[in-house]
Amino acid sequence: MKKIESRENKWFKRLNGLKLKKNRDKEGVFLAEGLRFVSEIPEEQAVEAFVVSEGFSAAHDVAIYEKKAPVLCIPDGLFATLCDTENPQGILAVCPKLDWDETAVFRKKAPFFLLAEELNDPGNLGTVIRTADACGADGVFLSKGSVDLYNPKVLRATMGALFHIPVFQDRSLEELSVKLKQERIPLYAAHLQGKDYPYDLDLRQSCAFLIGNEARGLSEQAAAYCDQWVKIPMPGRAESLNASVAAAVLLYEVVRQRIK
Amino acid sequence: MKKIESRENKWFKRLNGLKLKKNRDKEGVFLAEGLRFVSEIPEEQAVEAFVVSEGFSAAHDVAIYEKKAPVLCIPDGLFATLCDTENPQGILAVCPKLDWDETAVFRKKAPFFLLAEELNDPGNLGTVIRTADACGADGVFLSKGSVDLYNPKVLRATMGALFHIPVFQDRSLEELSVKLKQERIPLYAAHLQGKDYPYDLDLRQSCAFLIGNEARGLSEQAAAYCDQWVKIPMPGRAESLNASVAAAVLLYEVVRQRIK
Repeated sequence: MKKIESRENKWFKRLNGLKLKKNRDKEGVFLAEGLRFVSEIPEEQAVEAFVVSEGFSAAHDVAIYEKKAPVLCIPDGLFATLCDTENPQGILAVCPKLDWDETAVFRKKAPFFLLAEELNDPGNLGTVIRTADACGADGVFLSKGSVDLYNPKVLRATMGALFHIPVFQDRSLEELSVKLKQERIPLYAAHLQGKDYPYDLDLRQSCAFLIGNEARGLSEQAAAYCDQWVKIPMPGRAESLNASVAAAVLLYEVVRQRIK
Repeated sequence: MKKIESRENKWFKRLNGLKLKKNRDKEGVFLAEGLRFVSEIPEEQAVEAFVVSEGFSAAHDVAIYEKKAPVLCIPDGLFATLCDTENPQGILAVCPKLDWDETAVFRKKAPFFLLAEELNDPGNLGTVIRTADACGADGVFLSKGSVDLYNPKVLRATMGALFHIPVFQDRSLEELSVKLKQERIPLYAAHLQGKDYPYDLDLRQSCAFLIGNEARGLSEQAAAYCDQWVKIPMPGRAESLNASVAAAVLLYEVVRQRIK
Protein backbone atom coordinates (compact mmCIF):
# COMPACT_ATOMS: atom_id res chain seq x y z
CA MET A 1 0.00 0.00 0.00
CA LYS A 2 1.44 3.30 -1.10
CA LYS A 3 0.99 6.28 1.25
CA ILE A 4 0.24 9.75 -0.03
CA GLU A 5 0.75 12.51 2.49
CA SER A 6 0.46 15.81 0.71
CA ARG A 7 -1.60 17.86 -1.69
CA GLU A 8 1.57 18.34 -3.71
CA ASN A 9 1.87 14.64 -4.42
CA LYS A 10 1.57 13.91 -8.15
CA TRP A 11 -0.98 11.14 -7.67
CA PHE A 12 -3.11 13.32 -5.46
CA LYS A 13 -3.05 16.12 -8.01
CA ARG A 14 -4.08 13.72 -10.72
CA LEU A 15 -6.96 12.28 -8.67
CA ASN A 16 -8.12 15.77 -7.80
CA GLY A 17 -8.05 16.68 -11.49
CA LEU A 18 -10.37 13.78 -12.31
CA LYS A 19 -13.22 15.66 -10.69
CA LEU A 20 -13.32 17.60 -13.97
CA LYS A 21 -14.80 16.12 -17.14
CA LYS A 22 -12.01 17.47 -19.33
CA ASN A 23 -9.42 15.52 -17.37
CA ARG A 24 -11.54 12.36 -17.32
CA ASP A 25 -11.89 12.70 -21.09
CA LYS A 26 -8.17 13.27 -21.63
CA GLU A 27 -7.16 10.30 -19.52
CA GLY A 28 -10.08 8.03 -20.33
CA VAL A 29 -10.64 7.16 -16.66
CA PHE A 30 -13.17 7.96 -13.96
CA LEU A 31 -13.55 7.71 -10.18
CA ALA A 32 -15.97 5.14 -8.76
CA GLU A 33 -16.81 6.37 -5.26
CA GLY A 34 -18.05 4.56 -2.17
CA LEU A 35 -18.08 1.03 -0.80
CA ARG A 36 -21.33 0.00 -2.42
CA PHE A 37 -20.32 1.31 -5.81
CA VAL A 38 -16.85 -0.24 -5.65
CA SER A 39 -18.43 -3.57 -4.71
CA GLU A 40 -20.53 -3.35 -7.88
CA ILE A 41 -17.42 -3.33 -10.10
CA PRO A 42 -17.55 -6.60 -12.03
CA GLU A 43 -14.62 -9.07 -12.04
CA GLU A 44 -13.90 -8.39 -15.67
CA GLN A 45 -13.83 -4.60 -15.27
CA ALA A 46 -10.27 -3.28 -15.11
CA VAL A 47 -9.30 -1.06 -12.17
CA GLU A 48 -6.16 1.06 -12.38
CA ALA A 49 -5.92 1.73 -8.65
CA PHE A 50 -7.95 1.84 -5.47
CA VAL A 51 -7.70 4.86 -3.19
CA VAL A 52 -8.58 4.52 0.49
CA SER A 53 -8.62 6.91 3.43
CA GLU A 54 -6.46 6.14 6.44
CA GLY A 55 -9.60 5.56 8.48
CA PHE A 56 -10.87 3.03 5.93
CA SER A 57 -7.57 1.17 5.80
CA ALA A 58 -7.53 0.90 9.60
CA ALA A 59 -11.05 -0.55 9.69
CA HIS A 60 -10.98 -2.80 6.59
CA ASP A 61 -8.76 -5.48 5.17
CA VAL A 62 -7.48 -3.86 1.98
CA ALA A 63 -5.71 -7.05 0.85
CA ILE A 64 -8.76 -8.05 -1.20
CA TYR A 65 -8.36 -4.85 -3.21
CA GLU A 66 -4.60 -5.29 -3.59
CA LYS A 67 -5.23 -8.55 -5.43
CA LYS A 68 -6.82 -6.57 -8.21
CA ALA A 69 -4.90 -3.28 -8.34
CA PRO A 70 -2.47 -1.11 -6.35
CA VAL A 71 -3.97 0.58 -3.29
CA LEU A 72 -3.12 4.17 -2.38
CA CYS A 73 -3.74 5.44 1.14
CA ILE A 74 -4.55 9.10 1.82
CA PRO A 75 -5.19 11.00 5.09
CA ASP A 76 -8.93 11.30 5.79
CA GLY A 77 -9.08 15.07 5.30
CA LEU A 78 -7.37 14.93 1.90
CA PHE A 79 -9.47 11.95 0.87
CA ALA A 80 -12.66 13.86 1.59
CA THR A 81 -11.65 16.61 -0.83
CA LEU A 82 -11.69 14.06 -3.66
CA CYS A 83 -15.25 12.99 -2.95
CA ASP A 84 -18.57 14.34 -4.04
CA THR A 85 -20.48 13.05 -1.01
CA GLU A 86 -20.63 14.82 2.33
CA ASN A 87 -19.80 11.70 4.30
CA PRO A 88 -17.34 9.78 2.13
CA GLN A 89 -17.02 6.08 2.89
CA GLY A 90 -13.25 6.10 2.45
CA ILE A 91 -12.78 4.17 -0.77
CA LEU A 92 -12.74 4.95 -4.47
CA ALA A 93 -11.51 3.19 -7.57
CA VAL A 94 -9.81 4.68 -10.61
CA CYS A 95 -11.37 2.83 -13.56
CA PRO A 96 -10.87 3.08 -17.31
CA LYS A 97 -14.05 4.35 -18.95
CA LEU A 98 -16.34 1.64 -20.22
CA ASP A 99 -16.01 0.78 -23.86
CA TRP A 100 -19.09 -0.99 -25.21
CA ASP A 101 -19.37 -2.64 -28.61
CA GLU A 102 -22.17 -0.89 -30.44
CA THR A 103 -22.28 -3.44 -33.24
CA ALA A 104 -22.93 -6.22 -30.73
CA VAL A 105 -25.76 -4.21 -29.18
CA PHE A 106 -27.57 -3.98 -32.51
CA ARG A 107 -27.08 -7.69 -33.15
CA LYS A 108 -29.24 -8.68 -30.17
CA LYS A 109 -32.59 -10.31 -30.74
CA ALA A 110 -35.44 -7.75 -30.78
CA PRO A 111 -33.35 -5.16 -28.94
CA PHE A 112 -34.90 -2.18 -27.23
CA PHE A 113 -33.14 1.09 -26.62
CA LEU A 114 -33.57 4.36 -24.83
CA LEU A 115 -32.30 7.58 -26.42
CA ALA A 116 -32.17 10.85 -24.50
CA GLU A 117 -31.71 14.38 -25.79
CA GLU A 118 -29.66 16.68 -23.57
CA LEU A 119 -30.53 15.25 -20.18
CA ASN A 120 -29.03 17.77 -17.76
CA ASP A 121 -29.87 16.56 -14.31
CA PRO A 122 -27.31 14.06 -12.96
CA GLY A 123 -29.86 12.31 -10.75
CA ASN A 124 -32.24 11.91 -13.68
CA LEU A 125 -29.59 10.46 -15.96
CA GLY A 126 -28.37 8.01 -13.33
CA THR A 127 -31.94 6.92 -12.58
CA VAL A 128 -32.69 6.45 -16.28
CA ILE A 129 -29.67 4.14 -16.62
CA ARG A 130 -30.61 2.21 -13.48
CA THR A 131 -34.17 1.76 -14.76
CA ALA A 132 -33.04 0.73 -18.26
CA ASP A 133 -30.78 -1.86 -16.65
CA ALA A 134 -33.60 -3.22 -14.46
CA CYS A 135 -35.82 -3.50 -17.55
CA GLY A 136 -33.19 -5.42 -19.48
CA ALA A 137 -32.94 -2.74 -22.15
CA ASP A 138 -30.10 -3.30 -24.60
CA GLY A 139 -28.57 0.14 -24.59
CA VAL A 140 -28.88 3.81 -23.71
CA PHE A 141 -27.76 6.50 -26.16
CA LEU A 142 -27.12 10.06 -24.98
CA SER A 143 -27.07 13.02 -27.32
CA LYS A 144 -24.39 15.66 -27.36
CA GLY A 145 -25.00 18.20 -24.62
CA SER A 146 -26.03 15.69 -21.95
CA VAL A 147 -24.51 15.70 -18.49
CA ASP A 148 -21.39 13.48 -18.36
CA LEU A 149 -22.02 9.83 -17.57
CA TYR A 150 -18.96 9.85 -15.32
CA ASN A 151 -20.11 12.80 -13.23
CA PRO A 152 -20.05 11.48 -9.63
CA LYS A 153 -23.72 12.31 -9.04
CA VAL A 154 -24.70 10.41 -12.19
CA LEU A 155 -22.58 7.43 -11.16
CA ARG A 156 -24.13 7.36 -7.70
CA ALA A 157 -27.69 7.43 -9.06
CA THR A 158 -26.94 4.51 -11.42
CA MET A 159 -26.24 2.34 -8.35
CA GLY A 160 -23.67 0.49 -10.44
CA ALA A 161 -25.99 -0.11 -13.41
CA LEU A 162 -23.50 1.50 -15.80
CA PHE A 163 -21.38 -1.65 -15.44
CA HIS A 164 -24.29 -3.76 -16.75
CA ILE A 165 -25.88 -1.85 -19.58
CA PRO A 166 -24.13 -0.30 -22.58
CA VAL A 167 -24.36 3.49 -22.49
CA PHE A 168 -23.12 5.53 -25.46
CA GLN A 169 -22.39 9.22 -25.00
CA ASP A 170 -22.10 12.27 -27.29
CA ARG A 171 -24.12 10.64 -30.03
CA SER A 172 -25.66 12.42 -32.97
CA LEU A 173 -29.40 11.74 -32.83
CA GLU A 174 -29.59 12.24 -36.58
CA GLU A 175 -27.02 9.54 -37.28
CA LEU A 176 -28.66 7.25 -34.77
CA SER A 177 -32.05 7.68 -36.38
CA VAL A 178 -30.53 6.70 -39.74
CA LYS A 179 -28.93 3.65 -38.17
CA LEU A 180 -32.22 2.64 -36.55
CA LYS A 181 -34.03 2.99 -39.88
CA GLN A 182 -31.44 0.75 -41.52
CA GLU A 183 -32.00 -1.82 -38.81
CA ARG A 184 -35.78 -1.42 -39.14
CA ILE A 185 -36.12 -0.45 -35.51
CA PRO A 186 -38.96 2.04 -35.02
CA LEU A 187 -38.04 5.15 -33.05
CA TYR A 188 -40.82 6.46 -30.85
CA ALA A 189 -40.75 9.97 -29.43
CA ALA A 190 -42.23 10.64 -26.01
CA HIS A 191 -44.16 13.74 -27.00
CA LEU A 192 -46.99 15.75 -25.44
CA GLN A 193 -48.55 16.05 -28.90
CA GLY A 194 -48.42 12.33 -29.61
CA LYS A 195 -51.69 10.60 -30.41
CA ASP A 196 -51.02 6.98 -29.56
CA TYR A 197 -50.44 5.67 -26.08
CA PRO A 198 -47.48 3.37 -25.53
CA TYR A 199 -50.04 0.66 -24.75
CA ASP A 200 -51.15 0.72 -28.40
CA LEU A 201 -47.72 -0.15 -29.81
CA ASP A 202 -46.35 -3.64 -30.41
CA LEU A 203 -43.22 -3.50 -28.28
CA ARG A 204 -42.43 -7.20 -28.45
CA GLN A 205 -40.60 -6.22 -31.64
CA SER A 206 -37.39 -4.18 -31.65
CA CYS A 207 -38.04 -0.60 -30.59
CA ALA A 208 -36.38 2.57 -29.39
CA PHE A 209 -37.73 5.52 -27.41
CA LEU A 210 -36.45 9.06 -27.45
CA ILE A 211 -37.06 11.29 -24.42
CA GLY A 212 -36.31 15.00 -24.22
CA ASN A 213 -34.62 17.46 -21.92
CA GLU A 214 -36.13 17.95 -18.43
CA ALA A 215 -37.27 21.51 -18.96
CA ARG A 216 -37.64 21.92 -22.71
CA GLY A 217 -38.85 18.48 -23.78
CA LEU A 218 -37.77 17.22 -27.21
CA SER A 219 -36.46 19.71 -29.74
CA GLU A 220 -38.48 19.95 -32.95
CA GLN A 221 -35.52 18.63 -34.85
CA ALA A 222 -35.15 15.55 -32.67
CA ALA A 223 -38.91 14.89 -32.70
CA ALA A 224 -38.76 14.92 -36.50
CA TYR A 225 -36.26 12.04 -36.52
CA CYS A 226 -38.86 9.77 -34.95
CA ASP A 227 -41.23 7.41 -36.73
CA GLN A 228 -44.10 7.99 -34.36
CA TRP A 229 -44.96 10.27 -31.47
CA VAL A 230 -46.24 8.62 -28.36
CA LYS A 231 -48.18 10.26 -25.59
CA ILE A 232 -47.93 9.15 -22.00
CA PRO A 233 -51.44 9.65 -20.60
CA MET A 234 -51.83 12.19 -17.84
CA PRO A 235 -55.42 11.94 -16.62
CA GLY A 236 -54.62 14.10 -13.57
CA ARG A 237 -53.65 17.74 -13.40
CA ALA A 238 -49.85 17.70 -13.72
CA GLU A 239 -48.90 18.65 -17.26
CA SER A 240 -45.59 16.87 -17.51
CA LEU A 241 -43.55 14.13 -15.92
CA ASN A 242 -40.04 13.99 -14.56
CA ALA A 243 -37.77 12.74 -17.39
CA SER A 244 -36.73 9.60 -15.53
CA VAL A 245 -40.38 8.80 -14.78
CA ALA A 246 -41.31 9.22 -18.46
CA ALA A 247 -38.49 6.85 -19.41
CA ALA A 248 -39.65 4.35 -16.78
CA VAL A 249 -43.24 4.34 -18.03
CA LEU A 250 -42.08 3.61 -21.59
CA LEU A 251 -39.45 1.02 -20.71
CA TYR A 252 -41.83 -0.79 -18.37
CA GLU A 253 -44.44 -1.02 -21.09
CA VAL A 254 -41.87 -3.01 -23.07
CA VAL A 255 -41.32 -5.23 -20.04
CA ARG A 256 -45.06 -5.73 -19.55
CA GLN A 257 -45.66 -6.72 -23.15
CA ARG A 258 -42.70 -9.09 -23.27
CA ILE A 259 -43.37 -10.80 -19.95
CA LYS A 260 -46.47 -12.57 -21.16
CA MET B 1 -45.10 47.48 -1.16
CA LYS B 2 -43.31 47.30 2.15
CA LYS B 3 -39.52 47.58 2.11
CA ILE B 4 -37.33 45.49 4.35
CA GLU B 5 -33.76 46.70 4.65
CA SER B 6 -32.08 44.74 7.40
CA ARG B 7 -31.46 41.29 8.79
CA GLU B 8 -32.77 42.61 12.09
CA ASN B 9 -36.19 43.29 10.67
CA LYS B 10 -38.85 41.15 12.34
CA TRP B 11 -40.37 40.01 9.07
CA PHE B 12 -36.99 39.00 7.72
CA LYS B 13 -36.19 37.03 10.84
CA ARG B 14 -39.51 35.25 10.59
CA LEU B 15 -39.00 34.38 6.90
CA ASN B 16 -35.51 33.15 7.63
CA GLY B 17 -36.89 30.95 10.41
CA LEU B 18 -39.30 29.30 7.98
CA LYS B 19 -36.36 27.47 6.40
CA LEU B 20 -36.67 25.16 9.41
CA LYS B 21 -39.41 22.54 9.66
CA LYS B 22 -40.07 23.27 13.35
CA ASN B 23 -40.95 26.88 12.56
CA ARG B 24 -43.09 25.90 9.56
CA ASP B 25 -44.91 23.46 11.84
CA LYS B 26 -45.38 26.01 14.61
CA GLU B 27 -46.75 28.67 12.27
CA GLY B 28 -48.53 26.37 9.83
CA VAL B 29 -47.05 28.16 6.81
CA PHE B 30 -44.42 27.43 4.16
CA LEU B 31 -42.41 29.28 1.52
CA ALA B 32 -43.24 28.67 -2.15
CA GLU B 33 -40.13 29.68 -4.08
CA GLY B 34 -39.60 30.77 -7.67
CA LEU B 35 -41.65 32.31 -10.45
CA ARG B 36 -42.85 29.03 -11.91
CA PHE B 37 -43.90 27.68 -8.54
CA VAL B 38 -45.65 30.89 -7.51
CA SER B 39 -47.51 30.89 -10.83
CA GLU B 40 -48.80 27.40 -9.99
CA ILE B 41 -50.57 28.68 -6.86
CA PRO B 42 -54.28 28.26 -7.55
CA GLU B 43 -56.74 31.12 -7.24
CA GLU B 44 -58.42 29.54 -4.24
CA GLN B 45 -55.14 28.99 -2.34
CA ALA B 46 -54.60 31.65 0.32
CA VAL B 47 -51.32 33.56 0.31
CA GLU B 48 -50.27 35.49 3.41
CA ALA B 49 -47.63 37.58 1.65
CA PHE B 50 -45.39 37.70 -1.39
CA VAL B 51 -41.71 38.47 -0.96
CA VAL B 52 -39.73 39.87 -3.88
CA SER B 53 -36.14 40.92 -4.37
CA GLU B 54 -35.39 44.50 -5.39
CA GLY B 55 -34.17 43.21 -8.75
CA PHE B 56 -37.43 41.37 -9.31
CA SER B 57 -39.57 44.36 -8.37
CA ALA B 58 -37.62 46.55 -10.81
CA ALA B 59 -38.14 44.09 -13.67
CA HIS B 60 -41.72 42.94 -13.01
CA ASP B 61 -45.06 44.52 -12.34
CA VAL B 62 -45.79 43.45 -8.78
CA ALA B 63 -49.30 44.96 -8.85
CA ILE B 64 -50.75 41.59 -9.90
CA TYR B 65 -49.41 40.10 -6.67
CA GLU B 66 -50.61 43.01 -4.55
CA LYS B 67 -54.17 42.22 -5.60
CA LYS B 68 -53.89 38.95 -3.72
CA ALA B 69 -51.64 39.69 -0.73
CA PRO B 70 -49.19 42.26 0.65
CA VAL B 71 -45.83 42.37 -1.14
CA LEU B 72 -42.57 42.75 0.78
CA CYS B 73 -39.44 43.91 -1.02
CA ILE B 74 -35.98 42.83 0.13
CA PRO B 75 -32.48 43.68 -1.17
CA ASP B 76 -31.19 41.00 -3.57
CA GLY B 77 -28.43 39.77 -1.27
CA LEU B 78 -30.76 39.30 1.69
CA PHE B 79 -33.39 37.71 -0.53
CA ALA B 80 -30.90 35.11 -1.73
CA THR B 81 -30.24 33.97 1.84
CA LEU B 82 -33.89 32.96 2.13
CA CYS B 83 -33.75 30.72 -0.94
CA ASP B 84 -32.74 27.15 -1.43
CA THR B 85 -31.72 27.57 -5.08
CA GLU B 86 -28.36 28.91 -6.20
CA ASN B 87 -29.90 31.37 -8.65
CA PRO B 88 -33.08 32.57 -6.99
CA GLN B 89 -35.67 34.08 -9.29
CA GLY B 90 -36.57 36.84 -6.88
CA ILE B 91 -40.02 35.85 -5.71
CA LEU B 92 -41.50 33.68 -3.01
CA ALA B 93 -44.89 33.35 -1.40
CA VAL B 94 -45.72 32.72 2.25
CA CYS B 95 -48.63 30.24 2.12
CA PRO B 96 -50.64 28.53 4.81
CA LYS B 97 -50.03 24.79 4.71
CA LEU B 98 -52.54 22.85 2.64
CA ASP B 99 -55.36 21.30 4.58
CA TRP B 100 -57.04 18.48 2.67
CA ASP B 101 -60.24 16.75 3.66
CA GLU B 102 -59.40 13.09 4.14
CA THR B 103 -63.04 12.03 4.36
CA ALA B 104 -63.71 13.52 0.94
CA VAL B 105 -60.75 11.66 -0.51
CA PHE B 106 -62.17 8.31 0.61
CA ARG B 107 -65.58 9.19 -0.77
CA LYS B 108 -64.31 9.33 -4.37
CA LYS B 109 -65.40 6.68 -6.85
CA ALA B 110 -62.87 3.79 -7.01
CA PRO B 111 -60.10 5.91 -5.51
CA PHE B 112 -56.47 4.94 -5.79
CA PHE B 113 -53.78 5.95 -3.36
CA LEU B 114 -50.07 5.87 -2.89
CA LEU B 115 -48.60 5.30 0.57
CA ALA B 116 -44.90 5.73 1.28
CA GLU B 117 -42.88 4.59 4.28
CA GLU B 118 -40.12 6.94 5.37
CA LEU B 119 -39.17 8.43 2.02
CA ASN B 120 -36.02 10.41 2.81
CA ASP B 121 -34.89 11.92 -0.45
CA PRO B 122 -36.57 15.28 -1.17
CA GLY B 123 -36.27 14.82 -4.95
CA ASN B 124 -37.87 11.39 -4.74
CA LEU B 125 -40.78 12.59 -2.65
CA GLY B 126 -41.44 15.56 -4.91
CA THR B 127 -41.29 13.36 -8.00
CA VAL B 128 -43.66 10.82 -6.43
CA ILE B 129 -46.21 13.57 -5.77
CA ARG B 130 -45.82 14.98 -9.28
CA THR B 131 -46.32 11.51 -10.79
CA ALA B 132 -49.32 10.72 -8.58
CA ASP B 133 -50.87 14.01 -9.70
CA ALA B 134 -50.23 13.26 -13.39
CA CYS B 135 -51.85 9.83 -12.94
CA GLY B 136 -54.92 11.32 -11.32
CA ALA B 137 -54.34 9.44 -8.07
CA ASP B 138 -56.68 10.50 -5.28
CA GLY B 139 -54.17 10.95 -2.51
CA VAL B 140 -50.66 10.37 -1.20
CA PHE B 141 -50.08 9.31 2.42
CA LEU B 142 -46.66 9.69 4.03
CA SER B 143 -45.62 7.76 7.11
CA LYS B 144 -43.98 9.30 10.12
CA GLY B 145 -40.26 9.76 9.52
CA SER B 146 -40.59 10.97 5.92
CA VAL B 147 -38.87 14.10 4.69
CA ASP B 148 -41.10 17.16 5.18
CA LEU B 149 -43.48 17.90 2.31
CA TYR B 150 -42.69 21.61 2.73
CA ASN B 151 -38.93 21.19 2.42
CA PRO B 152 -37.96 23.52 -0.46
CA LYS B 153 -36.35 20.70 -2.47
CA VAL B 154 -39.50 18.60 -2.17
CA LEU B 155 -41.67 21.54 -3.21
CA ARG B 156 -39.47 22.22 -6.25
CA ALA B 157 -39.59 18.59 -7.41
CA THR B 158 -43.41 18.55 -7.16
CA MET B 159 -43.53 21.29 -9.83
CA GLY B 160 -46.63 22.61 -8.10
CA ALA B 161 -48.41 19.25 -7.95
CA LEU B 162 -48.91 19.59 -4.19
CA PHE B 163 -51.59 22.20 -4.94
CA HIS B 164 -53.54 19.61 -6.98
CA ILE B 165 -53.36 16.33 -5.12
CA PRO B 166 -54.12 15.73 -1.44
CA VAL B 167 -50.98 14.75 0.48
CA PHE B 168 -51.24 13.65 4.11
CA GLN B 169 -48.14 13.66 6.29
CA ASP B 170 -47.06 11.95 9.51
CA ARG B 171 -49.58 9.18 9.14
CA SER B 172 -49.57 5.91 11.03
CA LEU B 173 -49.40 3.14 8.43
CA GLU B 174 -51.12 0.80 10.87
CA GLU B 175 -54.12 3.09 11.29
CA LEU B 176 -54.24 3.68 7.56
CA SER B 177 -54.25 -0.04 6.84
CA VAL B 178 -57.21 -0.44 9.21
CA LYS B 179 -59.04 2.40 7.48
CA LEU B 180 -58.36 0.88 4.06
CA LYS B 181 -59.70 -2.49 5.25
CA GLN B 182 -62.87 -0.81 6.51
CA GLU B 183 -63.28 0.81 3.12
CA ARG B 184 -62.54 -2.51 1.36
CA ILE B 185 -59.61 -0.99 -0.51
CA PRO B 186 -56.85 -3.58 -1.05
CA LEU B 187 -53.39 -2.43 -0.02
CA TYR B 188 -50.60 -3.75 -2.23
CA ALA B 189 -46.97 -3.69 -1.11
CA ALA B 190 -44.23 -3.15 -3.66
CA HIS B 191 -41.99 -5.95 -2.46
CA LEU B 192 -39.02 -7.81 -3.92
CA GLN B 193 -40.48 -11.04 -2.55
CA GLY B 194 -43.90 -10.48 -4.07
CA LYS B 195 -45.20 -13.17 -6.42
CA ASP B 196 -47.73 -11.34 -8.53
CA TYR B 197 -46.92 -8.68 -11.05
CA PRO B 198 -48.93 -5.47 -10.96
CA TYR B 199 -50.23 -6.50 -14.38
CA ASP B 200 -52.08 -9.42 -12.77
CA LEU B 201 -54.16 -7.23 -10.44
CA ASP B 202 -57.52 -5.69 -11.22
CA LEU B 203 -56.74 -2.03 -10.65
CA ARG B 204 -59.94 -0.65 -12.12
CA GLN B 205 -61.27 -1.18 -8.59
CA SER B 206 -60.18 0.95 -5.64
CA CYS B 207 -56.60 0.21 -4.68
CA ALA B 208 -53.64 1.48 -2.72
CA PHE B 209 -49.92 0.85 -3.07
CA LEU B 210 -47.30 1.06 -0.36
CA ILE B 211 -43.67 1.73 -1.30
CA GLY B 212 -40.71 1.61 1.05
CA ASN B 213 -37.70 3.69 1.96
CA GLU B 214 -35.07 4.29 -0.76
CA ALA B 215 -32.32 2.28 0.89
CA ARG B 216 -34.08 -0.17 3.18
CA GLY B 217 -37.24 -0.96 1.23
CA LEU B 218 -40.39 -1.71 3.25
CA SER B 219 -40.05 -2.61 6.91
CA GLU B 220 -41.37 -6.06 7.83
CA GLN B 221 -44.01 -4.43 9.96
CA ALA B 222 -45.29 -2.24 7.14
CA ALA B 223 -45.21 -5.11 4.65
CA ALA B 224 -47.38 -7.11 7.06
CA TYR B 225 -50.12 -4.46 6.92
CA CYS B 226 -50.61 -5.16 3.23
CA ASP B 227 -53.13 -7.53 1.66
CA GLN B 228 -50.83 -8.67 -1.12
CA TRP B 229 -47.18 -8.27 -2.10
CA VAL B 230 -46.54 -7.21 -5.64
CA LYS B 231 -43.31 -7.62 -7.52
CA ILE B 232 -42.20 -5.19 -10.18
CA PRO B 233 -40.41 -7.35 -12.75
CA MET B 234 -36.71 -6.72 -13.26
CA PRO B 235 -35.62 -8.88 -16.19
CA GLY B 236 -32.29 -7.04 -16.40
CA ARG B 237 -29.44 -6.98 -13.92
CA ALA B 238 -30.29 -4.09 -11.59
CA GLU B 239 -31.71 -5.49 -8.36
CA SER B 240 -33.82 -2.57 -7.31
CA LEU B 241 -35.46 0.57 -8.60
CA ASN B 242 -35.38 4.17 -7.51
CA ALA B 243 -38.38 4.72 -5.18
CA SER B 244 -40.02 7.28 -7.45
CA VAL B 245 -39.62 4.94 -10.44
CA ALA B 246 -41.22 2.07 -8.50
CA ALA B 247 -44.13 4.35 -7.61
CA ALA B 248 -44.46 5.43 -11.26
CA VAL B 249 -44.59 1.84 -12.56
CA LEU B 250 -47.39 0.98 -10.13
CA LEU B 251 -49.41 4.16 -10.59
CA TYR B 252 -49.13 3.95 -14.38
CA GLU B 253 -50.43 0.39 -14.35
CA VAL B 254 -53.60 1.81 -12.76
CA VAL B 255 -53.75 4.43 -15.53
CA ARG B 256 -53.23 1.79 -18.23
CA GLN B 257 -55.99 -0.44 -16.92
CA ARG B 258 -58.43 2.41 -16.47
CA ILE B 259 -57.82 4.07 -19.82
CA LYS B 260 -59.44 1.33 -21.83
